[in-house]
Amino acid sequence: MASHSYQAPKGTRDFYPGDLAVRRHIENAWRSASIDCGFDEVEGPTFEHLELYTAKSGEGIVNELFSFRRAGGENDYALRPEFTPTLARMVAARAGSLPVPVKWFAIPNMFRAERPQRGRLREFVQWNIDVCGVEGAATDIDVISCAILALERLGLTPNDVQVRLSHRVAIARMLGALGVSAEKSADAMTLLDRRDKLKPEEFAQRASALGLSTDAVARFDTAARATQRLSDPLTALAAKIGVSVEEFAALDEVRAAADRAGILDWCSVDVGIVRGLAYYTGTVFEVHEISGAERAVAGGGRYDGLVELFGGPKMPACGFGMGDVVLANVLRDRKLLPEDGATLMPRPDVFVISAGGELADAELPRLVMSLRRQGLHARSSSKATRNVGKLLGDAGKNRARMAVILGAELAEGSVALKDLDAGTQQVVPLATVVAAIKAARGS
Amino acid sequence: MASHSYQAPKGTRDFYPGDLAVRRHIENAWRSASIDCGFDEVEGPTFEHLELYTAKSGEGIVNELFSFRRAGGENDYALRPEFTPTLARMVAARAGSLPVPVKWFAIPNMFRAERPQRGRLREFVQWNIDVCGVEGAATDIDVISCAILALERLGLTPNDVQVRLSHRVAIARMLGALGVSAEKSADAMTLLDRRDKLKPEEFAQRASALGLSTDAVARFDTAARATQRLSDPLTALAAKIGVSVEEFAALDEVRAAADRAGILDWCSVDVGIVRGLAYYTGTVFEVHEISGAERAVAGGGRYDGLVELFGGPKMPACGFGMGDVVLANVLRDRKLLPEDGATLMPRPDVFVISAGGELADAELPRLVMSLRRQGLHARSSSKATRNVGKLLGDAGKNRARMAVILGAELAEGSVALKDLDAGTQQVVPLATVVAAIKAARGS
Repeated sequence: MASHSYQAPKGTRDFYPGDLAVRRHIENAWRSASIDCGFDEVEGPTFEHLELYTAKSGEGIVNELFSFRRAGGENDYALRPEFTPTLARMVAARAGSLPVPVKWFAIPNMFRAERPQRGRLREFVQWNIDVCGVEGAATDIDVISCAILALERLGLTPNDVQVRLSHRVAIARMLGALGVSAEKSADAMTLLDRRDKLKPEEFAQRASALGLSTDAVARFDTAARATQRLSDPLTALAAKIGVSVEEFAALDEVRAAADRAGILDWCSVDVGIVRGLAYYTGTVFEVHEISGAERAVAGGGRYDGLVELFGGPKMPACGFGMGDVVLANVLRDRKLLPEDGATLMPRPDVFVISAGGELADAELPRLVMSLRRQGLHARSSSKATRNVGKLLGDAGKNRARMAVILGAELAEGSVALKDLDAGTQQVVPLATVVAAIKAARGS
Repeated sequence: MASHSYQAPKGTRDFYPGDLAVRRHIENAWRSASIDCGFDEVEGPTFEHLELYTAKSGEGIVNELFSFRRAGGENDYALRPEFTPTLARMVAARAGSLPVPVKWFAIPNMFRAERPQRGRLREFVQWNIDVCGVEGAATDIDVISCAILALERLGLTPNDVQVRLSHRVAIARMLGALGVSAEKSADAMTLLDRRDKLKPEEFAQRASALGLSTDAVARFDTAARATQRLSDPLTALAAKIGVSVEEFAALDEVRAAADRAGILDWCSVDVGIVRGLAYYTGTVFEVHEISGAERAVAGGGRYDGLVELFGGPKMPACGFGMGDVVLANVLRDRKLLPEDGATLMPRPDVFVISAGGELADAELPRLVMSLRRQGLHARSSSKATRNVGKLLGDAGKNRARMAVILGAELAEGSVALKDLDAGTQQVVPLATVVAAIKAARGS
């Protein structure tokens, strides 16, 4: 067997306990925010029929699929590169019977067969939030608010990350006002989307190819880089680009809804946010670390044609995806994750120690199982030693809150209960030890 | 696009909210039992290098792999059919630095390219528990106790399921006493393992091929079907098979440890339990529904050579896997899962209603986000209606505990707070509504 088979495949991760505690910490923020915002959790298969992706997804994703066929089977499959097609398929299949609006979240793992690099792996976890069946800026903001709630719970502030948003309708109107013809509108959006990936000369060259006047090319270039706080008047944005503020009417509604929900300080307008995927139709947004140094933490928007695209009825929809990899980088850079993930692991309520003797040794496994049956996180040592000092050291290494010492008092039906955080110790009857530990844990 | 691409691949599942609530209910029992028993959670990649499985796993699993290669890549991969090779690889990689004993649990999804049937799917979830670094029956029982704790929390009793256990050393000694030669011992174990899959004549024919006398074949046949409560004396078992009770000494230790931990009533001896996989070395067990009608709910045992097999040091190990599919069937048959999984979904703490008017409509999104920011599960309606009766109906459909009605009292800074379970209503200042809801929720 080649030695590489003893390693995780390139671009995937082994999660040792401390690593997984960090991932669970992030997932718990996602899950609790989702539930508090009224979303119900769903999940789908880890792989889907290949055609689910080849027929409808953007080119970028199709090139990055891990696809396969079962030996002797007829169908080609692919590991899911995104959750949206699964969600759309599931909504479409039960569109007649699901209560509307459909508000769903999922925390699936995803797979992309691309070159691993900072912020990008071949397997990662992605939080997905989707609302189907309701239109309007208030719903867009409900979705964005849920992302913000999770970011807040992870300790981030509007000074750390911003929701950079735009609106496909506003951008289309702005492009029209700049003189971009309807048939060049998609090209112009692609160019806006790629502004950070192209050299200035190449960008200018492609902008000229849109058939714009020299002056309009310059204004297009300004637009591509135009950002401001959502709280600032849109007249300022319009003036900078040289178009009427009327073109941004759609963004005005988004701003009003953000204001009503109290999340205006988290939001910026960014005319260069278009979202590469083909299916967005309205509000589009990405969450970015404020310096812009990292890849997007999250991205999403309104895709009203989505459910129909996957065989369902016409149904407005809005959602986003947030991966764990970039988010963890941002949190780590801001010291919002502990150096040692082990500090995020569940602490034992009690560590049970036998001080030696037949009575204590026989009682230990019975007591441990009994504590566990009563809902306590109970550990003990597998070492042969009966040295209480050494075993208390093990209790400390295990980060236990309390220790029960089975010693001489056991003959009278009592045990020593030590509070390892407070350093206090008391003798309690064996029959009341659970209540005593629960009381201490509750305090 | 073929219409099959709108369906989940054969043998996989779409988890709508109620379905996922059932799965989470099972996973929560697994997770809480694992943590209370002192296991730390780990996770690995969803796919591994193909060789990780082809080199070391049993034949049965290798034939059921979903394998694939990245376009343009050199390595073959396989979706994980079991977690044990990943675990062994991870332990082996850090064997020098991990605290011993290593006590890990995982709840990964697994994949098998076999024909879907009752209790068997192509994608399923499997709870894994493993201890590495400690020998002895007490550890085997620690592992089995953890399985029992989860089953208890799901409402099962020893009258519903039994841990059927055996011991490879005891079986080898028994086979020797029956006259099976050392070189035929593996064949004899395979035969024991397949007792339920072979017709009686075929079983008898294969037993004869072990080179046994007619009398020994009859005793082997008796042994293959020999089961009893672990609490019953092993002398009875030995007498039934016609061998000395000494051969079962290893089982005696397991029995003593089960007795000390207080789980004897959950356990049976079953000489026909061998476990197909090649790597078991000591205690082996399966959890079965008591009538034997279903496939095994769980299976595991001691595999002391495991970590070494995957490139690590010599390290004793013991563990099990428990899938979600058979377990859910057993729970459902015993009415231990609700007919409607929706009753297991998180209930909203509060449903916010606007009775109409500019003040109330403007307050609603602000209040909803504020409640969520304070950790409450808050919902509201997306309907245009301001009919309080209809909206209270929606609150009920959402299973909300309380409703806040923004009405006439809002002009004086107050709202109506209705306890939907108790049917009571009070007027409270807007500023104290969170405290009032939390107080009601706590009670």
